[in-house]
Amino acid sequence: MRVLVYGDGQLAQMLNLAGVPLGIDVAAVNVKDHSIVNPVDKAPRTESLKQAITDAKALTVEFEHVPVGLLEDADASGKLHPSFTAIRIGADRVLEKRFLERLQIPNCRHQIITEHSQLDNIVAELGEKVIIKASLDGYDGYGQWRLKAASQLPELKAQLADLDLGAVPLIAEQMVSFERELSLIGARNAQGQVNFYPLAENRHHEGQLHVSVAPAPKLTEELTQQAQQIFTTIVEDLDYVGVLAVEMFQIGERLIVNELAPRVHNSGHWSIHGAETSQFENQLRAVLNLPLGDMSAHSVSAMVNIIGCGSIAKEVLAVPGCHLHWYGKTVRAKRKMGHINVVAESYAQLAQRLDELAGLLPLEFFPVLEDEAQRLAEQ
Amino acid sequence: MRVLVYGDGQLAQMLNLAGVPLGIDVAAVNVKDHSIVNPVDKAPRTESLKQAITDAKALTVEFEHVPVGLLEDADASGKLHPSFTAIRIGADRVLEKRFLERLQIPNCRHQIITEHSQLDNIVAELGEKVIIKASLDGYDGYGQWRLKAASQLPELKAQLADLDLGAVPLIAEQMVSFERELSLIGARNAQGQVNFYPLAENRHHEGQLHVSVAPAPKLTEELTQQAQQIFTTIVEDLDYVGVLAVEMFQIGERLIVNELAPRVHNSGHWSIHGAETSQFENQLRAVLNLPLGDMSAHSVSAMVNIIGCGSIAKEVLAVPGCHLHWYGKTVRAKRKMGHINVVAESYAQLAQRLDELAGLLPLEFFPVLEDEAQRLAEQ
Repeated sequence: MRVLVYGDGQLAQMLNLAGVPLGIDVAAVNVKDHSIVNPVDKAPRTESLKQAITDAKALTVEFEHVPVGLLEDADASGKLHPSFTAIRIGADRVLEKRFLERLQIPNCRHQIITEHSQLDNIVAELGEKVIIKASLDGYDGYGQWRLKAASQLPELKAQLADLDLGAVPLIAEQMVSFERELSLIGARNAQGQVNFYPLAENRHHEGQLHVSVAPAPKLTEELTQQAQQIFTTIVEDLDYVGVLAVEMFQIGERLIVNELAPRVHNSGHWSIHGAETSQFENQLRAVLNLPLGDMSAHSVSAMVNIIGCGSIAKEVLAVPGCHLHWYGKTVRAKRKMGHINVVAESYAQLAQRLDELAGLLPLEFFPVLEDEAQRLAEQ
Repeated sequence: MRVLVYGDGQLAQMLNLAGVPLGIDVAAVNVKDHSIVNPVDKAPRTESLKQAITDAKALTVEFEHVPVGLLEDADASGKLHPSFTAIRIGADRVLEKRFLERLQIPNCRHQIITEHSQLDNIVAELGEKVIIKASLDGYDGYGQWRLKAASQLPELKAQLADLDLGAVPLIAEQMVSFERELSLIGARNAQGQVNFYPLAENRHHEGQLHVSVAPAPKLTEELTQQAQQIFTTIVEDLDYVGVLAVEMFQIGERLIVNELAPRVHNSGHWSIHGAETSQFENQLRAVLNLPLGDMSAHSVSAMVNIIGCGSIAKEVLAVPGCHLHWYGKTVRAKRKMGHINVVAESYAQLAQRLDELAGLLPLEFFPVLEDEAQRLAEQ
């Protein structure tokens, strides 16, 4: 049984590793040259993309920014999950905002900017603190600008002057002050079965996710209910099939949606060790219409991204509950090279283990780790 | 970092899957044609065996019956773990028995038969109930004969008449009456760090392992101590590096060794889901002299072999705690096709889950499953 994934990065790799035991062969499409590769060792496979689409029982994506022409071909097979529409909503912030508005799902106050002249009004509409994002290809802190005071507007306009806003509009969002970012990852299969992982709390630094903790500390039933309600509204409207990640900001006891990722997500990597069934296995189960696996957390987990750092002291393997996961990539600044999952029986024990880890890691690459350990120790 | 495994079956496959996250590339040697393959999809790799040996940081085996010439070449690299001697002891029952005797480790009363005339004395020496095994290639019930009464001896001698006992001696063992078979799997790295999984209880049917339960029910501290003492004696004498499985019979509160497997073992597959670190990851850690991972069981587990059966109802995936693991092989009678790991919080819950599983599986291929569920329910 073959599943074809568009994209051959670490998410495709982890889908492949989850597939082998289930007897599912996960092959990847290199979206640049359209070749079919083994997503683990990148060894080329001989079949054409067309043949691979024919051979696959299901098609899916590891990232939403797949070229539209490729997605259309995938969609034409009738085997693409989630759907073309769902993937495009994840890829295009204009579609995403319109979708959230249509479903009356709380999200950040925003304006869609299709003409430069609209920028003159953003302070009046949204206040002095605004984050501006390209509608397409905004990813991990790239293609974003910040307005921190009205006086910066002329400079910002100058920076944006060359952009073709008719082709790629901007989204201007009110910067909100929030307690924390939470993400809800869940899945729905074609029979409509829906299941959720516990909410994870995500800690960013310079626009990149550094640490996720799951279940998020200090969860209330009310927060979980809100998040699951939002998730269910989305997947039912879209007749969504697959894993979906919903990133949200917590403001008081309210949640507003930041963005949607129509795929397995970095904030769900903890599930490989901290949940009965990982998000990768559940993605495969969902797109193949198999029963979803248990998503409850059997431990408390932290997922620590390894970013821009190519090697780790082997003593890390001796820290109780630590599991190293490399993606097999060449090191570059800011590149996600792997992650470390840490499982524990309590937040206090998790804090201890993160602290022990921090003593072994080059902290310039792990700038929030000590602070996270401290914060968890206080839970 | 490359580890080269002799043998390209399911154990090599599971070693590969454990290696990827650690940044370890596990390649396999096809011991028939000496080609190097990816042990998951069997895709050939272009390098020669000689080059693969040079490139590897460590060499190991997934089965002990590797042709001696190949093993000698591997040994000459200085990177083979466990050692040539340890592997040969696992492969040759004469060496194994002599080794156990030298270390005064309790084992079954036996005779090494190198001449046909010795068979005349076995009833006098060992009693009427004797099991006779070829010293080499005895594996999964093949190459074994049973004497159940002295009157059967002439017939048995006739069956064995054509064997060249000088080349391949026989071992005649007293058939012992035992409560159960237990196996201890553990590992030792080059620094001498030793760690153990809990004892597993193994249930066979027609010479093949069908179910392992770990930790074994009704373990006493005394049993665990005895088993760990035996294990430690063996690995220290051999300066053993890697995972070792020791199969033992429990007779009253005493353990006697049945056989040694110098590798990861079928009775340790439960560790993929039921222990913090699997036997496959620990094998890689041991042979690369990395710190060993935690081997304690965080759940109670049953490993159910899928033998001679090529497909399973998808509803099995909906049974709580069940994890399917296929080996990607073509179905044949008596062939191990995969296994199902079932984890639970108690033996009672495990029994329930096995019972649920039994309701979904074709029981002709799982002849002991219902009985095991019943037995566990009574713990």
